[in-house]
Amino acid sequence: MHVKAVVAREPAAGPNWAFEDVTIGPPADDEVLVKITATGICHTDILLSSIPSGGPFGMGYPKVLGHEGAGIVQETGKNVTKVVVGDKVLLSYYSCSNCARCRSSRPMYCTQFNLENYAGRKGPVVCKDSNEEIWTRFFGQSSFAEYSIVAEASVVKVTGLLQSDEELNLFAPLGCGFQTGMGAVLNVADPGPEDVVMVMGMGAVGMAALMTAKIRNCRTIVAVDRFDNRLELAKSLGATHTINTMVPDFGFQDAVREISPTGVSAVIDTTGAGKLIEEAVESLAPLGKMVHIASPPPGYKLSLDITQLFANGKTITGCIEGNCLPSESIPQMVQWYREGRFPIDKLVTYYPAVDFAKALAHMHDGSTLKPVLTWA
Amino acid sequence: MHVKAVVAREPAAGPNWAFEDVTIGPPADDEVLVKITATGICHTDILLSSIPSGGPFGMGYPKVLGHEGAGIVQETGKNVTKVVVGDKVLLSYYSCSNCARCRSSRPMYCTQFNLENYAGRKGPVVCKDSNEEIWTRFFGQSSFAEYSIVAEASVVKVTGLLQSDEELNLFAPLGCGFQTGMGAVLNVADPGPEDVVMVMGMGAVGMAALMTAKIRNCRTIVAVDRFDNRLELAKSLGATHTINTMVPDFGFQDAVREISPTGVSAVIDTTGAGKLIEEAVESLAPLGKMVHIASPPPGYKLSLDITQLFANGKTITGCIEGNCLPSESIPQMVQWYREGRFPIDKLVTYYPAVDFAKALAHMHDGSTLKPVLTWA
Repeated sequence: MHVKAVVAREPAAGPNWAFEDVTIGPPADDEVLVKITATGICHTDILLSSIPSGGPFGMGYPKVLGHEGAGIVQETGKNVTKVVVGDKVLLSYYSCSNCARCRSSRPMYCTQFNLENYAGRKGPVVCKDSNEEIWTRFFGQSSFAEYSIVAEASVVKVTGLLQSDEELNLFAPLGCGFQTGMGAVLNVADPGPEDVVMVMGMGAVGMAALMTAKIRNCRTIVAVDRFDNRLELAKSLGATHTINTMVPDFGFQDAVREISPTGVSAVIDTTGAGKLIEEAVESLAPLGKMVHIASPPPGYKLSLDITQLFANGKTITGCIEGNCLPSESIPQMVQWYREGRFPIDKLVTYYPAVDFAKALAHMHDGSTLKPVLTWA
Repeated sequence: MHVKAVVAREPAAGPNWAFEDVTIGPPADDEVLVKITATGICHTDILLSSIPSGGPFGMGYPKVLGHEGAGIVQETGKNVTKVVVGDKVLLSYYSCSNCARCRSSRPMYCTQFNLENYAGRKGPVVCKDSNEEIWTRFFGQSSFAEYSIVAEASVVKVTGLLQSDEELNLFAPLGCGFQTGMGAVLNVADPGPEDVVMVMGMGAVGMAALMTAKIRNCRTIVAVDRFDNRLELAKSLGATHTINTMVPDFGFQDAVREISPTGVSAVIDTTGAGKLIEEAVESLAPLGKMVHIASPPPGYKLSLDITQLFANGKTITGCIEGNCLPSESIPQMVQWYREGRFPIDKLVTYYPAVDFAKALAHMHDGSTLKPVLTWA
């Protein structure tokens, strides 16, 4: 079967993606053939396809990325029990289901997580013309393709949750970016109505964190970014205060103390920017929590004053995928969307898959928060 | 009233304590005159009296230290409601009762904590002969004295909890050292039966943490120290494994992985030793927690790889006084003591107060875990 796909090749100055034809075979026993209708683009796609082959995580090329897929099941391997042909599905991260962490409901810390989700597997998908083997099963799905062979573990059935065909595409990013921000608040920061929550970096992940803080009725929600248009959007989604770090003579502590003299109860960092992280730790109130969900630049280390940490009962932590189980988090987010409390339709912009370069450019210049490639 | 006290003077190469006569007046409206029967010595007494006047926390000399006091109420200020004359009391840390943190049951992060507990107040106690004003109210109590004027906020009534007069002396250290280790496990690490808990530094605080992990039925409890006698004692109190960091060719990660190949669920650090702390963070299992309750050397910063932190959902945190409310933690520890699960009688060594120097020497060489000065 010959299908269109966005294929990443050995990075040069950055990601090196092209629209190509690839050949896929039938699903294995524990796999599903999915006709992909939409795939969100996440910074992780860009970050990982910037790593040369042989670097961290065993990245190899050519590779089909894409890990926020949505689509319709076309064929199932003989051991598959979660879905049948015709089911509508969202795709999320892969976990092995067998290790101690998977068996204790912590599949996001599966011992195979990095290997299976970041590196994926080589073949049996090949380039149509050259027959070159392609790295697939990225996050169990490699969903930057018209059709993809997906691990059953990555599949969440949503047939009964949808009210229209369009919703399947809209919900594509729930399986990674949105659940990451949502879960960082719901499962890790766990704030209450009296808490002051600060979200740094108002991309899709940050907006999901912000909406969740609003769902938790936090009295003060501070959005931090360098783009005014994102801060305006954040306000419309529930931010009670905004901080633009690019204003002249910006002082982080002053800006925070003006909003909350006693400091911040929780910070969700989606930037990975060292300078911001250090300021944020400093700004925590006693018993405050810093939640990291973004990669800092390679080699960066946070220099942490332990005395300040214990004298104030501060916590520094982080999580993968918001510590979410997709089979639970996706229905929860859909319910909140229906209630108007998780309006991801304000965050998503659609691009025909062939226009992926335009989507990347709009992500880069801040004009698009969450690009979703459509394959219809 | 002239009473004997251990008076700390400006430190030279270290703490500079002497047995002296001091003059105290009557209690103020919110104070209590307590005949001290016993006072535990804690490393914080030594650490803080090593800071020159004018240094951190506004330390000043001469000063009466002592913050693990036990005694009998002799006189009460007119606003005092918690105790009456004749009540037996344990003394704990001071909190203002008025700030937002005190009002939300977090008095250990009281805005006045450092000022009132570490610096205390100057006068009205004076040196008997020179009339020099003394810094008192250390932790609201300055209990290295025969009699002391104590803040009502530092007093916990235990009249009804005691089965003998001796128990009052035995329980003296419950109000600081023991509750710090106990609460770090109970309130912060919060482990369950499947968890692997590692305690670093088997002094009194570490032993309290260890006994609490045992109370929580943790399947694996690892004691880390450099003294074999302490590790043997730790075994008798519930450690399932011990690690002596002074053995030749010691490798921390190897030692831990041999005990628990998947790493450690929680570490309680009572050492403040940078090298051990870094190894311990590395040894954490996914979702593992590092709990700091000891001061590292001045200027020490932990260099923290954030990517490792969030990729594994690790948490770095700390607490003051084990996040304990003494009015709740002290009765809890007494109950466990009666049940044989918190055998602090195995940890305490008594010294007549005049022999404080011997107690310090025995603390230093590791032969005494928790020295308690008696004033009878």
